[in-house]
Amino acid sequence: MKTLMEYQQNQPWIIKENSFDNNFLSKCESVFALGNGYLGVRSAFEENYIGEKRDMFVSGTFDRFDKSEVTELPNVPDFIQMEFVINGRNLDLNLGEITQYSFSLNLKTGQLIRHFIWKFADIHLEFNFRRFVSFDDLHLLGQEVTIRNLGADTSFQLKSGIDGQLTNSGSQHFAEGTKDQEKNRILQMVSTTAQSRIDFVQSTIHDFSDRSLIDKTRIEISRRQIHKLYWFHLKSNRSIKISKLSNVYTSIDRDLNQKTVEYMISVSANVLNFDVQKGFDYLLKKSALAWEEKVWRDFPIEIKSIDFTDQLALNFARYHLHIMVPKHDGRMSIAAKGLSGEGYKGHTAWDTDIFMLPYFTMTYPEIARKLLTYRYLGLSGAHKKAALNHYQGAQYPWESAWPSNGEVAPVWGAADIVTGKPTKIWSGFIEQHISSDVAFGVKQYIDATSDLRFAKFEGYEMIFDTAKFWVSRLEYNAVKDRYEINNVVGPDEYKEHVNNNAFTNYSAAWNISTAIKVYEKIKQQDSKSFDRLNKKLGLDKTYRQWKEKLPKLYLPKANKDKILPQDDSYLSKKFWI
Amino acid sequence: MKTLMEYQQNQPWIIKENSFDNNFLSKCESVFALGNGYLGVRSAFEENYIGEKRDMFVSGTFDRFDKSEVTELPNVPDFIQMEFVINGRNLDLNLGEITQYSFSLNLKTGQLIRHFIWKFADIHLEFNFRRFVSFDDLHLLGQEVTIRNLGADTSFQLKSGIDGQLTNSGSQHFAEGTKDQEKNRILQMVSTTAQSRIDFVQSTIHDFSDRSLIDKTRIEISRRQIHKLYWFHLKSNRSIKISKLSNVYTSIDRDLNQKTVEYMISVSANVLNFDVQKGFDYLLKKSALAWEEKVWRDFPIEIKSIDFTDQLALNFARYHLHIMVPKHDGRMSIAAKGLSGEGYKGHTAWDTDIFMLPYFTMTYPEIARKLLTYRYLGLSGAHKKAALNHYQGAQYPWESAWPSNGEVAPVWGAADIVTGKPTKIWSGFIEQHISSDVAFGVKQYIDATSDLRFAKFEGYEMIFDTAKFWVSRLEYNAVKDRYEINNVVGPDEYKEHVNNNAFTNYSAAWNISTAIKVYEKIKQQDSKSFDRLNKKLGLDKTYRQWKEKLPKLYLPKANKDKILPQDDSYLSKKFWI
Repeated sequence: MKTLMEYQQNQPWIIKENSFDNNFLSKCESVFALGNGYLGVRSAFEENYIGEKRDMFVSGTFDRFDKSEVTELPNVPDFIQMEFVINGRNLDLNLGEITQYSFSLNLKTGQLIRHFIWKFADIHLEFNFRRFVSFDDLHLLGQEVTIRNLGADTSFQLKSGIDGQLTNSGSQHFAEGTKDQEKNRILQMVSTTAQSRIDFVQSTIHDFSDRSLIDKTRIEISRRQIHKLYWFHLKSNRSIKISKLSNVYTSIDRDLNQKTVEYMISVSANVLNFDVQKGFDYLLKKSALAWEEKVWRDFPIEIKSIDFTDQLALNFARYHLHIMVPKHDGRMSIAAKGLSGEGYKGHTAWDTDIFMLPYFTMTYPEIARKLLTYRYLGLSGAHKKAALNHYQGAQYPWESAWPSNGEVAPVWGAADIVTGKPTKIWSGFIEQHISSDVAFGVKQYIDATSDLRFAKFEGYEMIFDTAKFWVSRLEYNAVKDRYEINNVVGPDEYKEHVNNNAFTNYSAAWNISTAIKVYEKIKQQDSKSFDRLNKKLGLDKTYRQWKEKLPKLYLPKANKDKILPQDDSYLSKKFWI
Repeated sequence: MKTLMEYQQNQPWIIKENSFDNNFLSKCESVFALGNGYLGVRSAFEENYIGEKRDMFVSGTFDRFDKSEVTELPNVPDFIQMEFVINGRNLDLNLGEITQYSFSLNLKTGQLIRHFIWKFADIHLEFNFRRFVSFDDLHLLGQEVTIRNLGADTSFQLKSGIDGQLTNSGSQHFAEGTKDQEKNRILQMVSTTAQSRIDFVQSTIHDFSDRSLIDKTRIEISRRQIHKLYWFHLKSNRSIKISKLSNVYTSIDRDLNQKTVEYMISVSANVLNFDVQKGFDYLLKKSALAWEEKVWRDFPIEIKSIDFTDQLALNFARYHLHIMVPKHDGRMSIAAKGLSGEGYKGHTAWDTDIFMLPYFTMTYPEIARKLLTYRYLGLSGAHKKAALNHYQGAQYPWESAWPSNGEVAPVWGAADIVTGKPTKIWSGFIEQHISSDVAFGVKQYIDATSDLRFAKFEGYEMIFDTAKFWVSRLEYNAVKDRYEINNVVGPDEYKEHVNNNAFTNYSAAWNISTAIKVYEKIKQQDSKSFDRLNKKLGLDKTYRQWKEKLPKLYLPKANKDKILPQDDSYLSKKFWI
């Protein structure tokens, strides 16, 4: 894939795009995404382009558009857009001559910067955009633009506000509420998710380095939109700095004392009034300091390598892990695409437990703990799914959203390239290793942290309950006198309906044997916990099943070529040439 | 307002735009709109632009997004879009050099033509787009593009299909149904309005002058979208002609034998298979012939004027009247903006009865008859509204959609420019002259056509029922011993809550006096009709009220300066300087 990125030896915290190409909007929108685990925003530009995808999400605010769709994170009304019209022309990087272009993200401070000089007809302006999602105040988004006039005296127009006409690729999750302006400066919009009935209050305020450059203003309220229009004059060689501070509150926020819309409207406006007095620079500095104190200072990770991009890649990965993890609320978890796009609809899958959780377990155990709380709260959904499939215990959903909802994987996916027919997504039905993946994350966290309080009250229960599922799932093969796990999808999702997938069988065996060990240990060492869990889960009975079936659970072995077959049929598949 | 239009002396049927300006997209989209009364499509371009508004509507298919919104015509999944990528560049008229640009609509044939030569970097192509909405087959939309390579050998890509990600300015009315391709050539999409549960089946097929220029194809199904991708090579000086034929069927269509989705899918595909064999030119010719036979031939209207644009303006007005009138179905009427945009949400207001109906009454009475059937079916909605307001008879809704729904005017409108607060729309509550406007249209039609069957079974009843409303609406002023109509909005909607609006009072008096005359006439001449209507409406009793109150209904008179005041307070208003 073509890239316009540039990385520099002495800048392990900077990713930068050096020239603009309308074809690569999506890439930078997600690679440069901003967030703080509560709020996530794709880094779409202020001005509009064909092919852009504006998305802003708030963790956990799932909504279902229609019975025919699954629940997803709704695309929240947009703050980012700012329309600049100069001499009747919209700012457009495709037109005229662009020099000194750079678009960069500082992974250490979370600051996004875009700079360029635009020359087109009689327009000659220098733009410098800055943006951050606060790591200090979860609700806050800051934007700033400095415009310097390198040409003759000019005038221009800015239209900026809150735009609720956006959708999730066509699905609209919000019913329109009130739109208003408080004391002539703060614009506010209230909207409510149509099915899950979550209220959103959003506010935005504009501030200027020099108000005398404003000739007039006007407010414009249209369908799902509230905007303020400003007309400026700008003499040659003069510049103006415009800041836009915005915040979002929702009725499921844990940090709100009350969840009434009236209360949120007042909090949102009051906080913004304080913020605008502090100013963009101060708020950005507070956010950068929060990154330093909460993330980088205590657990620096350095790679010694001859390739300096190794360190950059690590910083990049850590940055994204921290902008996507909802560490503020145990009812939420990391989405498969984080908060950077609509893919996988904001749902949590095995990636979280197997690939991302270990990083937090080893470095920020209090964050790992929150992710495990999410799985503990998810037991109710896992019980639902097991019962639906006539199994016992906890069968975790392949995709999960609100923890008690159970399975939310969609049933139908994109078209098959050959037949043009939509393909059925089998993962939600038969990709079952997720239950041992959850247990693995739990066990690793307990081993690494010795967090006994968690183990006793949440962790052991998840290990037992998933093992209980597995033992009910096993199928007895009388001919071979062994237990098998047939008709599954393993981690290789291109092979559907396979028998005895190695990863699935081995991880199930691990799950059951871990449960046996924990059972025996706590029965001996912690009878109080044991009694409680035994009563709750019927451990004695399920323990006998574990002991009886585990030795006969079929674990495929490597063949004479030392190849462990992925599943029963894998080695007999035809070659594709 | 700036215009890029050109009109020519000898072309009273052609409106033409001579150069492209991204700022004027909306204007041409609606001025050049295509339609046939069933289907209406804004003339957005094939390629996308910032600021465009793609809209396609099917008459009568009203849906309400949410309890907080009013019912509206949903924006139907789009056929128009065709994405051209040449040497990695999307076709974009803002880039490079455009010559020989013209965008024109032939008002006589309904053919839309766009022509230009695009030179940009190593691209040098001539495009000729043609488009029509068939006046012969209500469901059919035809598009064609001829691309001629004026530069070196090149290759390009086309992505075209059906796009259901569009909304009504953010409100999504459709639940996504199936997307499929039939026999590898026809793309189909099924969707259903979320609240009113109307099924839409849409199909599209592509055809080519020379299939050997296609290197490969692929189908792409994504959320609410089905597209086909084609890769072409095009030698220097060669050209290719691509046609795209599309159709729409809905489950409220009167011309369908069955309304099951399966039946519609099959009809839609079968018709399209026939159509593609006939080809774009033949179908366009059939449509132009239908315009000639159904509209122009029998009622030519010529203006003798020294200004040739008078004739052009008349042709333009007639063209639009005929593309917006749903003459195929009496359950529908003309929307305030026709089918050319989202304004007024596709609702019918007094404009139809007072300004548009007379044209049809005088020239195409069978169409006028359908519009009056709509008002007759609307009596149930008018009764609802009267009852809600504690009046009697038929109080017609200020805005109406599906006839039995009653009032559908929104309660809140755009922001007040001074206060920034949303303004309350009072028309739905107190703009009451609509009831006499309806009666006026009825009476004019009867007088012009002598359609006695209509008069007896529908027309007289509407005149009586509206007069019955008015007499229950009158307020007695004991001091002045007269009847008044207070607290209304007249046709000047900038004056709300006025008393004795002249238009309202005079038209109410006309309505009552007309009812009296009709009552007396049919009582004498057609006792059968009289008895039926007397029984149904209690005419004898209401007749006594008409006779008693009409002489005392206050009709403001001209003052000594010969000015008839618009309302009681009008002449005492302060001057605005």
